[in-house]
Amino acid sequence: MSLDFESWSCPLPLRDTPNIVLGHGGGGQLSADLVGSLFLPSFGAAASNDLGDAAVLEVPGGGRLAFSTDGYVVKPMFFPGGCIGDLAVNGTINDLAMSGARPLWMSTAFILAEGTPMAEVGRIAEVMGQAAKAAGVQLVTGDTKVVDHGSGDGVYVTTAGIGVVPDGVDVHPRRTRPGDAVLISGEIGLHGVAVMSQREGLEFGTAIESDTAAVNELVSALLDAGIDVHTMRDPTRGGVAASTNEIAAAAGVGIELDERALPIPQEVSDACGLLGLDPLQVANEGKFLAFVPQEQADEALAILRAMPLGARAQQIGRVIDDHPGVVVARTGLGATRVIGLPLGEQLPRIC
Amino acid sequence: MSLDFESWSCPLPLRDTPNIVLGHGGGGQLSADLVGSLFLPSFGAAASNDLGDAAVLEVPGGGRLAFSTDGYVVKPMFFPGGCIGDLAVNGTINDLAMSGARPLWMSTAFILAEGTPMAEVGRIAEVMGQAAKAAGVQLVTGDTKVVDHGSGDGVYVTTAGIGVVPDGVDVHPRRTRPGDAVLISGEIGLHGVAVMSQREGLEFGTAIESDTAAVNELVSALLDAGIDVHTMRDPTRGGVAASTNEIAAAAGVGIELDERALPIPQEVSDACGLLGLDPLQVANEGKFLAFVPQEQADEALAILRAMPLGARAQQIGRVIDDHPGVVVARTGLGATRVIGLPLGEQLPRIC
Repeated sequence: MSLDFESWSCPLPLRDTPNIVLGHGGGGQLSADLVGSLFLPSFGAAASNDLGDAAVLEVPGGGRLAFSTDGYVVKPMFFPGGCIGDLAVNGTINDLAMSGARPLWMSTAFILAEGTPMAEVGRIAEVMGQAAKAAGVQLVTGDTKVVDHGSGDGVYVTTAGIGVVPDGVDVHPRRTRPGDAVLISGEIGLHGVAVMSQREGLEFGTAIESDTAAVNELVSALLDAGIDVHTMRDPTRGGVAASTNEIAAAAGVGIELDERALPIPQEVSDACGLLGLDPLQVANEGKFLAFVPQEQADEALAILRAMPLGARAQQIGRVIDDHPGVVVARTGLGATRVIGLPLGEQLPRIC
Repeated sequence: MSLDFESWSCPLPLRDTPNIVLGHGGGGQLSADLVGSLFLPSFGAAASNDLGDAAVLEVPGGGRLAFSTDGYVVKPMFFPGGCIGDLAVNGTINDLAMSGARPLWMSTAFILAEGTPMAEVGRIAEVMGQAAKAAGVQLVTGDTKVVDHGSGDGVYVTTAGIGVVPDGVDVHPRRTRPGDAVLISGEIGLHGVAVMSQREGLEFGTAIESDTAAVNELVSALLDAGIDVHTMRDPTRGGVAASTNEIAAAAGVGIELDERALPIPQEVSDACGLLGLDPLQVANEGKFLAFVPQEQADEALAILRAMPLGARAQQIGRVIDDHPGVVVARTGLGATRVIGLPLGEQLPRIC
């Protein structure tokens, strides 16, 4: 095989950077560019065009599967409310649930740095087992690689998961339409602020804990009750801003959020003010956005609020005909501001 | 969550090391200890007990899937005959094929180090696309994380794959029985020696190239012809020594290899002599061991040899009643020596 790097050029023009920068992993515009302009064209005919958080696959012989993967590099590995272990399990479960699937099986691949204390690896594995059991998912296969000291950083975990999509369920951004209500299953900003506070040694009076949790039971409750969920998304990297922008772009609709309705805890609001962050861009890991017909919004909220993880569920906006592809927020004073897709990395290594 | 590392103790006693060492990623005894004594007990009830290279899963409603994952950290990322990209695609395809499955879909999760040239990432992605296309596998979902300079090393790739296990196929170590012929699909030792030579800047006159390739078509040819394949294994980390030891232990049988029948290229033999390596312990990435009834061995070899990747297929040994769990090699002089499971890492970061 002859490799000629000098003459390699990106199939589609990327922003002006010849090297990987942290923002390429941030879940914003740079991440989208990397996938759209480098990975998809380079993969070529072998890649499916619809590289969402989870792929829905038609099994020869019948039935549909959801399949998803995520790598986790969060720093520090242990933070208030969780660690890289439950994050990795919950994150893949949630990506599967967002496609309407019932998550069943998961793989775990570790890349360990030489010198990492065995006790830390053990704790992470215990937490992974507990998180999987709580969500009814089985850990069925895995792999471990070790890299030399200086080529890694403690523990990196990549999980992949498989779920079964029940007959009749059709959850996809293309089903989003004007008139849909935008619901959030609970308070936002907790995971990102918890990790950031721990990393920077900040204290905000009240300890802020990550919201890492599996939301598959909330999703099942909505679907089992016959709520016609059009699309769902868990607002992780890039937060609610990134998730709503992706849906607006994919569906060709406008989205209007109501700032006063956003469930932002006071501690998150205070911390974001101090750190110069927008709570709409901060990562979550136990929350999801559901787009449902407005006439089913109250029923859906009642179902979510009846479960502990959904107790603070809210309608935070609606889908509109105007300004397709653009997300705006209506402020308390009645003005609107545009909520853009974040460019790059607001909080590096948040998951 | 309160975390208490001081009081954590490994559920089952691991060898005397409180920290991760390179050998835990080597595919030998230390790797087996880490899975058996740390991961499985820590995962607890959420883990399946049969953590093989691929899990075979019964789908509710019918059918069987194979599911596998592997992380790749090979250094250097580009080596004679391949790169981390085709290694990652072929490795997961081969793990699926070893369970008798037809590989269909794959996920790709990248952990990139800040500063990695975009051209290198692009080349790797192109090679991945080509390898997937060649094997008839679709890349359907993925993820990218970026770690800061100094916390990574170029590109790490974790692939996971799903295959469908055809009705009637039953490939599992427990089916291995005395009287089985042990076949290898071709020459051994090429991948490990190619990577090692490149890394250490060694020149062996003739360039040795990695054998990285997908073997799923060879496997399909055997199964389609009605060969009753009892078990298969691709001898990657730890080489033929590790794979045969794992099967002997899992099946409770003895295995006798014939040293004179081992297809070891002269260049590999020379390089191993120079480097102090045992070719039986060196990693391969385009070869597999098949255990078939002795009466079908000639037919199986003819099928393999009719295809380019199987042209050098050989019977290299047999399964016996004696010394269950132990692998021996019969030397050219008629003596036998025990082939042990390697303890740890002979060649670090070989895949």
